Amino acid sequence: MEDIISLCKRRGFVFPGSDVYGGMAGTWDFGPLGVMLKKKIMDEWWKFFVEKRDDMYGVDAAILMNPRTWEASGHVATFADPLVECKECKSRFRADKIADGITESVTTDEFLALHVKCPVCGKENWGPIRKFNMMFATHVGAVLPEDVSEGTDAAAKSVAYLRPETAQGIFTNYKNVVDTIYPSLPFGLAQQGKAFRNEISPRDFILRDRECSQMEIEYFVAPETWEENFEKMRELQHEFLTRVMGLPEAAIHELEVPAEDRAHYSKRTIDFMFDYPNGQEELMGLAYRTDFDLTNIQRESGKSMEYRDKVTGATFVPHVIEPSIGVERLFLAVMTTAYHEDEVNGEKRVVLKLPENLAPYRFCVSPLLKNKPELVEKAREVYAKLREKYVNVTWDDSGNIGKRYRKQDEIGTPKCVVVDFDTLADDTVTVRERDTTEQTRVKISDL
Amino acid sequence: MEDIISLCKRRGFVFPGSDVYGGMAGTWDFGPLGVMLKKKIMDEWWKFFVEKRDDMYGVDAAILMNPRTWEASGHVATFADPLVECKECKSRFRADKIADGITESVTTDEFLALHVKCPVCGKENWGPIRKFNMMFATHVGAVLPEDVSEGTDAAAKSVAYLRPETAQGIFTNYKNVVDTIYPSLPFGLAQQGKAFRNEISPRDFILRDRECSQMEIEYFVAPETWEENFEKMRELQHEFLTRVMGLPEAAIHELEVPAEDRAHYSKRTIDFMFDYPNGQEELMGLAYRTDFDLTNIQRESGKSMEYRDKVTGATFVPHVIEPSIGVERLFLAVMTTAYHEDEVNGEKRVVLKLPENLAPYRFCVSPLLKNKPELVEKAREVYAKLREKYVNVTWDDSGNIGKRYRKQDEIGTPKCVVVDFDTLADDTVTVRERDTTEQTRVKISDL
Repeated sequence: MEDIISLCKRRGFVFPGSDVYGGMAGTWDFGPLGVMLKKKIMDEWWKFFVEKRDDMYGVDAAILMNPRTWEASGHVATFADPLVECKECKSRFRADKIADGITESVTTDEFLALHVKCPVCGKENWGPIRKFNMMFATHVGAVLPEDVSEGTDAAAKSVAYLRPETAQGIFTNYKNVVDTIYPSLPFGLAQQGKAFRNEISPRDFILRDRECSQMEIEYFVAPETWEENFEKMRELQHEFLTRVMGLPEAAIHELEVPAEDRAHYSKRTIDFMFDYPNGQEELMGLAYRTDFDLTNIQRESGKSMEYRDKVTGATFVPHVIEPSIGVERLFLAVMTTAYHEDEVNGEKRVVLKLPENLAPYRFCVSPLLKNKPELVEKAREVYAKLREKYVNVTWDDSGNIGKRYRKQDEIGTPKCVVVDFDTLADDTVTVRERDTTEQTRVKISDL
Repeated sequence: MEDIISLCKRRGFVFPGSDVYGGMAGTWDFGPLGVMLKKKIMDEWWKFFVEKRDDMYGVDAAILMNPRTWEASGHVATFADPLVECKECKSRFRADKIADGITESVTTDEFLALHVKCPVCGKENWGPIRKFNMMFATHVGAVLPEDVSEGTDAAAKSVAYLRPETAQGIFTNYKNVVDTIYPSLPFGLAQQGKAFRNEISPRDFILRDRECSQMEIEYFVAPETWEENFEKMRELQHEFLTRVMGLPEAAIHELEVPAEDRAHYSKRTIDFMFDYPNGQEELMGLAYRTDFDLTNIQRESGKSMEYRDKVTGATFVPHVIEPSIGVERLFLAVMTTAYHEDEVNGEKRVVLKLPENLAPYRFCVSPLLKNKPELVEKAREVYAKLREKYVNVTWDDSGNIGKRYRKQDEIGTPKCVVVDFDTLADDTVTVRERDTTEQTRVKISDL
């Protein structure tokens, strides 16, 4: 993990958020290379699950939603972690993370019985377990700080939350979508966007951050067909993760989540675990959410969420299959898969074996020597020619050719094209392969 | 404007945010068609300003930033509107929006002297003008509601803001980018992402919302070259807006912002105004921000923001040219340009004349009659064939062919391909043009 984090920072993939000010815990910024990779991951997902399919549509909802959304979804009541405070040093912890063998629903008595020592000061003097809601709250509208500190009615009425999941932005749009584009069941609504969770202790690089990008589909089905659609979605996830993202099937482990560990809305959940550098961690989830969300919205809003079958005329509230993946988790799975260390000519080499469809750059073009104007000029021609055809071509004339190869290996560029003196004579270039380091001579016209 | 808003809702472009719960003022959700258009607008911008250029790189920073960011940028001190409260009915207003001839810096005495009546209750009994900071505040970390209401130290220390602009997410990453990818001046860092402003009175559809998507570039230049680079950026904006987005040059008006109206950081600003249905409004801004932001960050962080020229070895803090555009404003400009009403066969028609590169669907494929299986089967073949080549093809067999044309006109599909009985005989289809309604016979193999 440390090697990947170091590479991410060194090569401009991922920087700590607000790094220049000493950071902001749980946030990460994507640098120039990271943006390219992240964008490709998100675009490939959108292409695979939305654009190439006839049964999927997109939505893009606001992050600030009417707070009734989170009453109806159960997040106001239940989206909370057990918080415990050390009365000695005032440090606060997530109780189930500093003691073994307890879950999120631990009580004060259960916790005290474990005689945990404070990880900061070493004492054992705990306050009660309190429920800490992980939604970020803010105030919307003309509410002044003094309203908030005085706890006025205006302050209370103006509370809104940063969405803790993108899913509700889909469910709240279900009715408008059905009423405007009349899709036939089964159909899915897909969304990509930010979600926020006030983790008590963000950790593990981009795996458990306070702000993440989600890619979610709510796939609406007739209730009696949920099992076949669950299977269909399950197969699609595997195809996407392996064929499109290039993750090895052997590193993906399906975990059937037992009833007592499932979210309150789910009747079946499979966690897709991935072999990250620090061990198995959730990469994505596939959940059968039943009609939990639509019936909640129906009750809270008083509006019918029923779907009328176009053929039979039957009306019912659709059930939902939800594949949900975090972009950062997928990004790290892709980096983990790509990261290799090997030896070339007796020297250690770091190489990112990214699939061609994800590599930030497909080609790097270089003159063999940067102080020979005739080589530079010819290389610029080759560069311009490739640029016409491909968007993602980079130019590199820094250092010597060996250093350039090492740099391009580290950022995952599959092919380096080098212009040398032979090029001037016969219009051929050296094409050097990232994974094998093999070099072949290719005519410029055949590039 | 009402016609466009109605079309946007009717056809699934833009819905009011949290519509099912009666809305959430100042937020808007993009429906299936709107997501397609918005995504194309954003992708075209990224292609034009980043991918096709050698001097631009992307970043993607977190929305939650270290609060020192907003101290250094001046937002904590100055990003505020003048708020006034009616003591009779307790309604609150932005003072400069309910009285004529005053600016954001109006004082209480100046406002009272105008004898404004409350727009809600009609009385004249005002409290003092108070500065209302438009940044949304939240608390990050293990802070409980009781900490906030009791005003504890933990609560004060945990305050963070939703970024009010994407620009600072670029500036704070400037040093990490320079240290990792060593770009040569001039170079630009581009970012697309959400920004939040707690508008006292959001209005004008998606023009003045509380949550918007920005596309910004900070273009770093040597101080003495700012004017030529300002001109270069100015020309690029026009090219993008007209050639790529299809906006008419005649609807874009450059407004040279006088010194007293410019933001505190700017030494020159041009507002690009656009002829929206409700009149001229800002579409985008081009600002010369000098070295204001980097020197602020340098002072606040204690880290050098100097750039060392690779040729001369000179060191200096770069100056910045910033083109900044709101996606929703551009979206509405595109819709405004595309929206037409005309008459076809004596009937009123609404047609969205979107450019081909922006239209959600390029083609719609239909069987002439939906109850003739041989036509449906053939049309499905044509559909599959086009789908192989183009992502954005839609299928429509609803209603009669006239209704389908009207629907496709309203969502801006340039070409409708119709399979009829002649198709079965000679493998030709009718291609009907959106803008002219002209129909031509085309061989399927020539589509």
